[in-house]
Amino acid sequence: MDAKPVVGIVMGSDSDLPIMREAAETLKQFGVPWEMTVASAHRSPDRAGLYAASARERGLKVVIAGAGWAAHLAGVLAAGTTLPVIGVPLASSPLNGLDALLSTVQMPPGVPVAVMALGGARNAALLAVQILALSDEHLAEKLLSWKDEMARGVAEKAAKVEL
Amino acid sequence: MDAKPVVGIVMGSDSDLPIMREAAETLKQFGVPWEMTVASAHRSPDRAGLYAASARERGLKVVIAGAGWAAHLAGVLAAGTTLPVIGVPLASSPLNGLDALLSTVQMPPGVPVAVMALGGARNAALLAVQILALSDEHLAEKLLSWKDEMARGVAEKAAKVEL
Amino acid sequence: MDAKPVVGIVMGSDSDLPIMREAAETLKQFGVPWEMTVASAHRSPDRAGLYAASARERGLKVVIAGAGWAAHLAGVLAAGTTLPVIGVPLASSPLNGLDALLSTVQMPPGVPVAVMALGGARNAALLAVQILALSDEHLAEKLLSWKDEMARGVAEKAAKVEL
Amino acid sequence: MDAKPVVGIVMGSDSDLPIMREAAETLKQFGVPWEMTVASAHRSPDRAGLYAASARERGLKVVIAGAGWAAHLAGVLAAGTTLPVIGVPLASSPLNGLDALLSTVQMPPGVPVAVMALGGARNAALLAVQILALSDEHLAEKLLSWKDEMARGVAEKAAKVEL
Amino acid sequence: MDAKPVVGIVMGSDSDLPIMREAAETLKQFGVPWEMTVASAHRSPDRAGLYAASARERGLKVVIAGAGWAAHLAGVLAAGTTLPVIGVPLASSPLNGLDALLSTVQMPPGVPVAVMALGGARNAALLAVQILALSDEHLAEKLLSWKDEMARGVAEKAAKVEL
Amino acid sequence: MDAKPVVGIVMGSDSDLPIMREAAETLKQFGVPWEMTVASAHRSPDRAGLYAASARERGLKVVIAGAGWAAHLAGVLAAGTTLPVIGVPLASSPLNGLDALLSTVQMPPGVPVAVMALGGARNAALLAVQILALSDEHLAEKLLSWKDEMARGVAEKAAKVEL
Amino acid sequence: MDAKPVVGIVMGSDSDLPIMREAAETLKQFGVPWEMTVASAHRSPDRAGLYAASARERGLKVVIAGAGWAAHLAGVLAAGTTLPVIGVPLASSPLNGLDALLSTVQMPPGVPVAVMALGGARNAALLAVQILALSDEHLAEKLLSWKDEMARGVAEKAAKVEL
Amino acid sequence: MDAKPVVGIVMGSDSDLPIMREAAETLKQFGVPWEMTVASAHRSPDRAGLYAASARERGLKVVIAGAGWAAHLAGVLAAGTTLPVIGVPLASSPLNGLDALLSTVQMPPGVPVAVMALGGARNAALLAVQILALSDEHLAEKLLSWKDEMARGVAEKAAKVEL
Repeated sequence: MDAKPVVGIVMGSDSDLPIMREAAETLKQFGVPWEMTVASAHRSPDRAGLYAASARERGLKVVIAGAGWAAHLAGVLAAGTTLPVIGVPLASSPLNGLDALLSTVQMPPGVPVAVMALGGARNAALLAVQILALSDEHLAEKLLSWKDEMARGVAEKAAKVEL
Repeated sequence: MDAKPVVGIVMGSDSDLPIMREAAETLKQFGVPWEMTVASAHRSPDRAGLYAASARERGLKVVIAGAGWAAHLAGVLAAGTTLPVIGVPLASSPLNGLDALLSTVQMPPGVPVAVMALGGARNAALLAVQILALSDEHLAEKLLSWKDEMARGVAEKAAKVEL
Repeated sequence: MDAKPVVGIVMGSDSDLPIMREAAETLKQFGVPWEMTVASAHRSPDRAGLYAASARERGLKVVIAGAGWAAHLAGVLAAGTTLPVIGVPLASSPLNGLDALLSTVQMPPGVPVAVMALGGARNAALLAVQILALSDEHLAEKLLSWKDEMARGVAEKAAKVEL
Repeated sequence: MDAKPVVGIVMGSDSDLPIMREAAETLKQFGVPWEMTVASAHRSPDRAGLYAASARERGLKVVIAGAGWAAHLAGVLAAGTTLPVIGVPLASSPLNGLDALLSTVQMPPGVPVAVMALGGARNAALLAVQILALSDEHLAEKLLSWKDEMARGVAEKAAKVEL
Repeated sequence: MDAKPVVGIVMGSDSDLPIMREAAETLKQFGVPWEMTVASAHRSPDRAGLYAASARERGLKVVIAGAGWAAHLAGVLAAGTTLPVIGVPLASSPLNGLDALLSTVQMPPGVPVAVMALGGARNAALLAVQILALSDEHLAEKLLSWKDEMARGVAEKAAKVEL
Repeated sequence: MDAKPVVGIVMGSDSDLPIMREAAETLKQFGVPWEMTVASAHRSPDRAGLYAASARERGLKVVIAGAGWAAHLAGVLAAGTTLPVIGVPLASSPLNGLDALLSTVQMPPGVPVAVMALGGARNAALLAVQILALSDEHLAEKLLSWKDEMARGVAEKAAKVEL
Repeated sequence: MDAKPVVGIVMGSDSDLPIMREAAETLKQFGVPWEMTVASAHRSPDRAGLYAASARERGLKVVIAGAGWAAHLAGVLAAGTTLPVIGVPLASSPLNGLDALLSTVQMPPGVPVAVMALGGARNAALLAVQILALSDEHLAEKLLSWKDEMARGVAEKAAKVEL
Repeated sequence: MDAKPVVGIVMGSDSDLPIMREAAETLKQFGVPWEMTVASAHRSPDRAGLYAASARERGLKVVIAGAGWAAHLAGVLAAGTTLPVIGVPLASSPLNGLDALLSTVQMPPGVPVAVMALGGARNAALLAVQILALSDEHLAEKLLSWKDEMARGVAEKAAKVEL
């Protein structure tokens, strides 16, 4: 994307791309510039640490972190920045993501992570848009019409089921 | 508080007050004006619906919702506004809050809720501050010094343990 | 169906149709008129709210609600009507429906939802028939003979296994 | 109670009385005549079987069954009658009621049990009232005003929290 | 089988046959006469009740019961006989059998069920043989040589892995 | 006890005594001679191994093993004898016994353990009695009258609740 | 302690001290010099990072890390050192430590953490001793006699129970 | 391998080979000599007992044990040796390995097992290497460069995702 990214999407492994890509697509849909990379809290802790430490000065406003198993990525990024960090637990382990969910959500007082549903990359992007829209009236309007559209989509599907 | 509230704290029952009050205290600490009320998604659906529908026009920027059991409150509020909604699952049921956690976090695509740990009212307030700080340099600086202080607090505790 | 519906079947998404259709088929089998639609507690809260609010006056006697993930639909409908609401949690998430089950069943005092097994659309319809049969002697007899038939079915299967 | 009972409350053990009594109190509040007894699916199977088999002819319309641990009572009663059976799983085991919940709710197709939350005796009674109200206009009105009162109760609690 | 059955194998549904058949095969291997049938605790309660009530007088010594979901079968049979009842929870539900396991194992004091692992039909048969062997020296010796053979089997597999 | 023990009660730790003692009391009630000891599968593997290896020749007919946490005791004893081994998982860990339950029940094919409910020491003894009663007519009659008494006990409790 | 520490005990919060102190006591019992400190992966990430990065050069051989909730500490330390890291999940959250256990144990390939039972600080120290004993014959002998003593302890307790 | 094995890899069943082989491959990569065999704690207790009892004198330094279901193997081996035992729970049961995880990790005080993630055979080997590297400078250096390589691998994957 050409514009300077304001949302950073980080994933713990490139195998998480198929799901985390949905976050990028949703941001694109709203015209929000983003960047996307891989950084493991465990295999590349320095890389993850630097990403968090430099996020604010590089102009990011929100960080989205997706990881599976003992998903420490969102917590580790949140430890290193005061930007809002959105965590996306991924259901990639035999335990169906219960491990990733609990590892991401049960953060101690002082270091919040905003946790989405398992595989909730699309919602992570929407939350980022909601946050950015607080100081961007244009984006706020897009959200409102998008919400209307979503309700209309339900009505259309209902019409088919009601037949 | 005198200033016009920008964060709304909603709880499903007044029995949730001891925990949700921590969100108010944390916001106070950061000088962020808030309001606090009770609205049950189930026992007072209209009240909850109106709260969400009017939140933006009343000047709120972030909504924090705490509830236990089949905790639908955060989701129901998120369904009715495009403001960021932060969910605080409460461990008030015999299942130790697993029900509240899953009911709050497993939201479908389209309606994000930013979920905190069980009982994570303090973190909910901190996330609200992080969001508000994106367009409030003063708040952003407070967050940075608060984060430093938190790290120093760990060092002090370490000193005692190391004796 | 020609007759005025007395059971309303609502699902949170049209992807729930393959399972929720079983409720319709079972009602048909008992000659109970039904209607079926889609209404999401999150994506179309107004639609869900109106459905519940108007259900009684439109002549419905029982509402069946099927949803997956953080399944708030049954609870939200129950919040808006005094008709019996039957909840069908659907196992559509990576957590195998534990989220939908707990979100549907752990309702707070004051707003009951009659919860079925995961995917229990057929039983939801049967419960609706049992309820309607309380004031419909003909239906009550159908239920009795249906129950006998079910027991005979087991005996027939037993005969094959015993060979 | 003087009037002929229309709701039967059954519990698996007399130790379940403190919770199951809430069902009786709620029914009393609505003027619905009830009876209450103990019958274990395991320790007194004949008693449980006879209760179910005779429920309809004795004039009962709804059966409420509360049990903990491997809670088979509701299922066993439902197997023996075509009346609606409402199950109340009780959190009396070390597993905090997860066993009772799953034992009560995961019924196979053909034999529905309307399951409440853990310890949800009050809601069981309310569901019974909702069912009975389908053919009792007076009861239906009571339910409506009760629902209004419940919403007002939330508003009153909110007023205190808002202070 | 020609000899009078001493072990009764009961399953809740004919769809359980592929697994429960393993119990029969194992009993055959040890020369223990068995019978096999279908009886649902919910769909055919009388059939299940009669099976339990008549088991002892028909010459059975041990009853094996396999069921999935809210698996009440073993408990219901145990309620109706003083013969040892062995329960085999089956992983046929979306919850991977956690429901069947808890429904089968968490029996209240007074009515024991001897529970096997999920799908443990083979072990159910072996336990039955162990029980019968207490008063059948020939069977006891078969068990001992079978146990030796099992250990040898491990050694043989080890030899292949060690290559 | 004077008579030669036919049931061996083993517990993993002397802290398990308050629960496992109930097995002894129940056996006493039926006049079945027993012995009781401590043997840890982990802290005293030789002791546990010897106990299992010598159980049969020492005249035991049934072994009852109670343990908490990663409860290997029943499995380890079952590995060393062809006598029926009854496992009693104990809820002594922070996980409320889920660990002990799964560790005891999920035995692989070839080595059955007859598992009771969490803390089910009384039922373990009853199952032992049921097994012994297969070749002891006197014991079988005691069981039958005991079962009747249990049902009468329920009826008595019912009478109080019905008041 | 006077000697240069070879085992570092780190805890996420000083509230973990009552349990983590048991690790220190056990090491003391074996004469292994240790150090103990507080470092939170979230509240003091730099402190945790530095601890891991400097551990080897400061002469540590093994690191023990205890933490509750979304316990990232052990994983974060393991990410920063090639020394063996032993994780002790603590049951300090409403979920009874299931969150801490999964957060600690489900590490991705490449960064092992040696995980103990919930609250298993004593075992963490014992594992450290076992590791150190590989190159310390004296320590190895202590372990052997300690293991004998443990077995004798069981025998003594057994003697009391057998009375 | 030619050199005398210092790591013993044991699995409960030859069906565990596809995963446990990864431990062998990783050890090979680091030039650490290993042996691999099958020994079931339940089907071949003597074999498992002898393996543990002789491990030290045969020159092993670390034992890796992989098993599924009620995975007692690591605990049983740890009971029989003072060498460090690394447990690898395998997700081979319907419960997705929760049973194997809890059976392996919840060891009582006195007998530590160093537990890896579900299926974490590779990490088991890495931990073994980390332990051996404490007294093998060459191995320690290999670990350091391997860790660097791992971080570089993440950076390379990041570069592809960033495109």
